[in-house]
Amino acid sequence: MAIFKQLFEDGGTSTMTYIIADADTREAVIIDPVLEQVDRDLKVIEELGLELKYIVETHVHADHVTGGSGLKKATGAEFVAGIGTGVSCSDLMLADGDTLTFGNEVLHAIATPGHTNGCMSYRWRDRLFTGDTILIEAAGRTDFQEGDAGALYDSIRKLMAYPDEYLVYPAHDYNDRRVSSVGQEKLRNPYVRAESREAFIRMMDELDLPRPKRIDVAVPANERCGEVA
Amino acid sequence: MAIFKQLFEDGGTSTMTYIIADADTREAVIIDPVLEQVDRDLKVIEELGLELKYIVETHVHADHVTGGSGLKKATGAEFVAGIGTGVSCSDLMLADGDTLTFGNEVLHAIATPGHTNGCMSYRWRDRLFTGDTILIEAAGRTDFQEGDAGALYDSIRKLMAYPDEYLVYPAHDYNDRRVSSVGQEKLRNPYVRAESREAFIRMMDELDLPRPKRIDVAVPANERCGEVA
Repeated sequence: MAIFKQLFEDGGTSTMTYIIADADTREAVIIDPVLEQVDRDLKVIEELGLELKYIVETHVHADHVTGGSGLKKATGAEFVAGIGTGVSCSDLMLADGDTLTFGNEVLHAIATPGHTNGCMSYRWRDRLFTGDTILIEAAGRTDFQEGDAGALYDSIRKLMAYPDEYLVYPAHDYNDRRVSSVGQEKLRNPYVRAESREAFIRMMDELDLPRPKRIDVAVPANERCGEVA
Repeated sequence: MAIFKQLFEDGGTSTMTYIIADADTREAVIIDPVLEQVDRDLKVIEELGLELKYIVETHVHADHVTGGSGLKKATGAEFVAGIGTGVSCSDLMLADGDTLTFGNEVLHAIATPGHTNGCMSYRWRDRLFTGDTILIEAAGRTDFQEGDAGALYDSIRKLMAYPDEYLVYPAHDYNDRRVSSVGQEKLRNPYVRAESREAFIRMMDELDLPRPKRIDVAVPANERCGEVA
């Protein structure tokens, strides 16, 4: 048996944070915590009687500062990021195919560069945590940090190779959606449905988006694992 | 470990059929099979090496004939329906709170009358199979069979009392969606968001929908567990 919690940050970043635990051993992981929500997350962890083992980041976020530093201080959990992030404060750097074990449960790392170099998606059972690689009916931007539309196209295809029933849990949604599936994204996501790698790159190039408001604060702070200077 | 398959009937009824199995014992249930897809379903069952134990109906459908009779003949599985359906050909008639066990997995029956008297939703782990009680951003009709908008309102509230993370798998979707969650429906479904029981009843009364095309064939056939006369 397992415990699965989805938490939402509605203070401006619409970030979804996930807590997964083994119900027997109570060992837990948290994916993409948010600085302003550390107290909320600690409360959930305490109420459920969990022992936080890993704080897992899908990438170096540009829109919010991770709650990783605060959670680590409070719980002693290890900070985990993809090796491509180059985040040297991380306790563990995962490569594609690496796994994290918590109790009898396993989180599988899937390298999905494109939105940033170090973007990592994760799979637990039949649930995919896609970070900013695939959003519901959308995809991560490729116009800042190390954005690379061609790499993102390849990463999206890698995730869409899982069975149609596999659930898609992204890092954000701005329209009150909370979950999708591989099959649903194949049918409804215009970025997944791009005709070719070239067409996808063109779609991304033609987006004309404002610079993220918090990028100048968030990226350096996240490169310090959320330690605010 | 468990196996979960979601199948879609795109021949006009947009019906979602679900197969759930215990990966160790291979015992399986199927929810809402469709007559025209019996061969597809048998192929999936055979390919996965499953032993079908129960054929489970969420209700007496008005839009399609169940594949239950054909699946029962081919596999020997038992036909299961809610006690409120009054379907006397059913091997098992479930009441609210009854359970079906397949291997180490359990399907829980949740009585959700309203769309029809006998509507039953089911819960497996943190997944709700809501039949026509809750559809994604919609609800079942209450203008035929034993439709009762007040009862449907109460049933929707009963399902929405589960945690926000619980997944919603309806019997149909006409817009390429495949899954939602309790939290998502609370935010996006206008029927879930009705201000009061009275407002909900008024919403349902004001719908002016055509009579379902197949109702005169489907309902009598489904009352015979899918045995075509």
